[in-house]
Amino acid sequence: MIIVLKPKTSEKDIKHVVDKVEKMGLKAHISKGVERTVIGAIGDESLIREDQLKAIPSVDKVMPILKPYKLVSREFKKEDTIIEIGDVSIGGKQIVMMAGPCSIESKEQLLKTAKAIKKSGATILRGGAFKPRTSPYAFQGMGEEGLKIMQEVEKETGLITISEIMEASQLPLLEKYVDILQIGARNMQNFNLLKTVGRSKKPVMLKRGPSATLKEFLMSAEYIMSEGNHNVILCERGIRTFCTHTRNTLDLNIVPGLKQATHLPVIVDPSHGTGKHDFVIPLSKAAVACGADGLMIEVHPNPEEAVSDGDQSLLPNKFDDLMKEVEPIAKAVGRKL
Amino acid sequence: MIIVLKPKTSEKDIKHVVDKVEKMGLKAHISKGVERTVIGAIGDESLIREDQLKAIPSVDKVMPILKPYKLVSREFKKEDTIIEIGDVSIGGKQIVMMAGPCSIESKEQLLKTAKAIKKSGATILRGGAFKPRTSPYAFQGMGEEGLKIMQEVEKETGLITISEIMEASQLPLLEKYVDILQIGARNMQNFNLLKTVGRSKKPVMLKRGPSATLKEFLMSAEYIMSEGNHNVILCERGIRTFCTHTRNTLDLNIVPGLKQATHLPVIVDPSHGTGKHDFVIPLSKAAVACGADGLMIEVHPNPEEAVSDGDQSLLPNKFDDLMKEVEPIAKAVGRKL
Amino acid sequence: MIIVLKPKTSEKDIKHVVDKVEKMGLKAHISKGVERTVIGAIGDESLIREDQLKAIPSVDKVMPILKPYKLVSREFKKEDTIIEIGDVSIGGKQIVMMAGPCSIESKEQLLKTAKAIKKSGATILRGGAFKPRTSPYAFQGMGEEGLKIMQEVEKETGLITISEIMEASQLPLLEKYVDILQIGARNMQNFNLLKTVGRSKKPVMLKRGPSATLKEFLMSAEYIMSEGNHNVILCERGIRTFCTHTRNTLDLNIVPGLKQATHLPVIVDPSHGTGKHDFVIPLSKAAVACGADGLMIEVHPNPEEAVSDGDQSLLPNKFDDLMKEVEPIAKAVGRKL
Amino acid sequence: MIIVLKPKTSEKDIKHVVDKVEKMGLKAHISKGVERTVIGAIGDESLIREDQLKAIPSVDKVMPILKPYKLVSREFKKEDTIIEIGDVSIGGKQIVMMAGPCSIESKEQLLKTAKAIKKSGATILRGGAFKPRTSPYAFQGMGEEGLKIMQEVEKETGLITISEIMEASQLPLLEKYVDILQIGARNMQNFNLLKTVGRSKKPVMLKRGPSATLKEFLMSAEYIMSEGNHNVILCERGIRTFCTHTRNTLDLNIVPGLKQATHLPVIVDPSHGTGKHDFVIPLSKAAVACGADGLMIEVHPNPEEAVSDGDQSLLPNKFDDLMKEVEPIAKAVGRKL
Repeated sequence: MIIVLKPKTSEKDIKHVVDKVEKMGLKAHISKGVERTVIGAIGDESLIREDQLKAIPSVDKVMPILKPYKLVSREFKKEDTIIEIGDVSIGGKQIVMMAGPCSIESKEQLLKTAKAIKKSGATILRGGAFKPRTSPYAFQGMGEEGLKIMQEVEKETGLITISEIMEASQLPLLEKYVDILQIGARNMQNFNLLKTVGRSKKPVMLKRGPSATLKEFLMSAEYIMSEGNHNVILCERGIRTFCTHTRNTLDLNIVPGLKQATHLPVIVDPSHGTGKHDFVIPLSKAAVACGADGLMIEVHPNPEEAVSDGDQSLLPNKFDDLMKEVEPIAKAVGRKL
Repeated sequence: MIIVLKPKTSEKDIKHVVDKVEKMGLKAHISKGVERTVIGAIGDESLIREDQLKAIPSVDKVMPILKPYKLVSREFKKEDTIIEIGDVSIGGKQIVMMAGPCSIESKEQLLKTAKAIKKSGATILRGGAFKPRTSPYAFQGMGEEGLKIMQEVEKETGLITISEIMEASQLPLLEKYVDILQIGARNMQNFNLLKTVGRSKKPVMLKRGPSATLKEFLMSAEYIMSEGNHNVILCERGIRTFCTHTRNTLDLNIVPGLKQATHLPVIVDPSHGTGKHDFVIPLSKAAVACGADGLMIEVHPNPEEAVSDGDQSLLPNKFDDLMKEVEPIAKAVGRKL
Repeated sequence: MIIVLKPKTSEKDIKHVVDKVEKMGLKAHISKGVERTVIGAIGDESLIREDQLKAIPSVDKVMPILKPYKLVSREFKKEDTIIEIGDVSIGGKQIVMMAGPCSIESKEQLLKTAKAIKKSGATILRGGAFKPRTSPYAFQGMGEEGLKIMQEVEKETGLITISEIMEASQLPLLEKYVDILQIGARNMQNFNLLKTVGRSKKPVMLKRGPSATLKEFLMSAEYIMSEGNHNVILCERGIRTFCTHTRNTLDLNIVPGLKQATHLPVIVDPSHGTGKHDFVIPLSKAAVACGADGLMIEVHPNPEEAVSDGDQSLLPNKFDDLMKEVEPIAKAVGRKL
Repeated sequence: MIIVLKPKTSEKDIKHVVDKVEKMGLKAHISKGVERTVIGAIGDESLIREDQLKAIPSVDKVMPILKPYKLVSREFKKEDTIIEIGDVSIGGKQIVMMAGPCSIESKEQLLKTAKAIKKSGATILRGGAFKPRTSPYAFQGMGEEGLKIMQEVEKETGLITISEIMEASQLPLLEKYVDILQIGARNMQNFNLLKTVGRSKKPVMLKRGPSATLKEFLMSAEYIMSEGNHNVILCERGIRTFCTHTRNTLDLNIVPGLKQATHLPVIVDPSHGTGKHDFVIPLSKAAVACGADGLMIEVHPNPEEAVSDGDQSLLPNKFDDLMKEVEPIAKAVGRKL
């Protein structure tokens, strides 16, 4: 931690900061510049209370040197984490394809979609039973009935399943019916929920919040890992910016950023990320080109009748096109689909 | 709802859209322009599934005419909502002052703060017992013990109390000990939590999420009201932008925006909104000048020892200055402190 | 300058960085932490090439300690700069009111507006003769003819005048006809233009760019001052964010931010800042409450016929209301209108 | 244009809006809904003054149906524009590679870079002679001397050249020495400069401003085309968001967005777009994968000694790696390098 003091700080005030640092259990290292005095706090940076230092009147800035996350970091674990679920590996050589409708609407709808995406080469079926909707008057999901349908479809198709958990009390239900727990973007900092899934044996896919920095995203993953669940998958799904040509701004820059900072697998969701079905295929190709380990794609047999997100869903034949267009990109970066 | 079709849409495709609109229970009103055909959907707009319309290939844009919220809107209720708790009215002529530490740390700390802010004229005591922290390794709050302290301090000082609820299961605890339930910014779209507090008898203060639009903010308030709890207080606490001169960008523009759109009271939190204790007083004055019904201010007897948010907390004597500086502003806008 | 090296940097690589720092003319001060080595570069920080240091493979982060601007800073000049033009002082006790139409349209229009705003108490007349318009097909301003009208109106009313300069070649024209040169938000980083007005004897009002940080804003003011013109006025006019309830997000947080960092006067433009005539009065009051030295307001005798910005212009009688509502706020903060 | 009136607008006020629309030369088409009246303005939308309509008190919203740009649009010209300069085609099947240093520093530096990038397969040499720098105290470029060096290097290597024009008066100089004129991001809305290069015979590459929407970006291109120069190349180089893991947020979403909206070629600059040399290769691959027609890459023979942008420059051998990694991606999308 580097502590920059205000210009003309007195010796007495410098000593006050030094005492504070030493009381926290670190060594203070004073460096007097031409205009400013800078204090380096040497030792275990996690002992430092940054807020408290900033509250000292003579302190101008406090700049951390170390990263605040541990378990998720490349420094902690050098090799890529590969998560195995049945025959599927997430984070390995194969690009993982997750696809399916926004909401589970009926057995027929889900089964039809599942068969189609499987035929095209996807291995994981997505579908929401509990839906976080902006409006209280919008369809809120089929609940347990939807999860049952998902389990039936899993049995008939052999696809791995993923569905969103919206609150801690739903954990037993989700664990009973699906293979991967999804934390939605709006819940990325629902810390109680993060701790709850951190105690589950099921892998968790954590979506990035619309205004989350890379650091905050990883801190939320750290919450899950710190409770014992190390099978965490990260998912970029677009951030909020001033842009209006897409619903969100899919931030592919975070893919190499995450690959550098963490060992966890990275999935990209261009359906939510752009909110426009026309843009899903080009951004899917871009995501794989810059290092994503997989894609999550909304597919619906009849988007015009979808109860949610029809505008960003692909028809099954469009999803098939996507698979065909992504395949040579995967090869070009030394992976396979 | 206005539906703009793509250029050169065929008669058959126009008919498909018209049929779709009519199937939803509305009347379609066709208007052919020089380059585009536009369809007005007349009737109960809430019956429309915007996503489904956007999923039709010949549809270019769908533009809603009406607002998606009802109970929170000025159209629904013309007069300002005034929430009475004990002797305190929120939303009336008096500017309401909420103050206190970020976290409850001890009886001594809270009582000392409470007495000081009361002396300066505040009527509501804030203090967190359950703390949403970015890091799993940071202090997470005293929990029920903290709430008990708050209740004791309430009894000794007569101040009204407010504290944050982080998940649905904490409701009985919060209801038992405090007067106003606070939903934090990170939980603004934790819809299950919104529904839960919507069934409580206690007033709820809802903080705006860091990337929430005015519409999304009001939709979250609508969630609470739609469950029966009409005592909702809105709180602006800063949004996330590219700016770095403040921790968040306090968006005072939303104060007149909310006053126009809704009848609910509006509080401003310049402590979180700016993240800098130096900026709290000027922005407090600005907030009251543009129409806020109250302020929420972090006050700590010793910010250098605060377990959280020391950098944005005011000392009690600084809070006293704030009260003295805000008072003439309140008067200037026809209110009182 | 603080240079943080990557973990496990070798002695040889540390030496390479030290040599680099010393070659730049500074002293290197090595501080070895538990996990990282940190090098402090002590001396004249302006000699440092931050980019070059970041380009060294063993360097992780480079953190400047000092501010990159000098002439504009409070450290350079403690007392507030007060700019005197005729009878008007900008930056002193009096809140300065600049008002007028977006575009000069005719003698009649400008004179009518000028008389009205003067009667209400404004002292500076604004009006554009060269208009930066998003569309090449929109009205581009009356040019020199407009400036002549402005000068005539100045003579008839005694108001001080301000108008925008869009490129260096227009300087002689602007200097001939108006009292204050305005640099528009879109030209905040048109560095040649900044240097050009830096060589003028006329005061310059510099508008903040829609995505400019406080530091960048001040660096642009530094460009003007570094050429010799010390009469620079800063103007906040809204930044670009995700918000849609206003056209821009007026960032009042920057008012105390600028007051702390610089001695230059600060004006706020709530007309462009919000883009909504309904919001101009409340945000004007807020701006004065948090320390602005003046306001710039769009006023038009007939907004429905304005050639530009009709939607954010006030009618003269609304401007009169604004003056009446701002006056008690000015008094409340110890200023006068 | 769709004009939505406020609830309960009187017949008289409806007529006032209708009259206004008809006075502008369009037909008004009234549609009365359950809660609102909506007026469609049918005819040449470019005749409408949106601001004036918004200034009418009974008008709630004005929503344009048509795009405000013409010459740049796909509707105006269906086929992709291909710009031929010597042997190089921009916008055709071949991915165009522009590379070189941020600033021209010496003949030796530029020639060395040029030979290296040519050997790797680039066809266009970039290098700045006039540099827009945030600080007035930073290196401002070699000026004409730099351009002369560029011309000499062009003669020795046969590479096409591109360099930035910062103001109108520099046009003769730039036209004399280089093949393509570049408008920098900070000048994207320097409308006089846009008009000036619009009268040149040289192709122009226009960089997107850091807070420009797709529409504003195209309107600036329209400025150039409206003056007669139809050889415009668009360049995405990152937008300003809250993210800090990159210097800017490279917005690849705009690539398919532009491809849909316009016939002009689209280049991506991941060097400025990310500001981190580590991220340049992955984002280059992503850009080509989602449809970019070319890349602009900063290359410097010795980034540690570069006078500007050393931190985001690639060494020549890294650029060679980039070419080798991009090639299979180009093939995968049916293009060649």
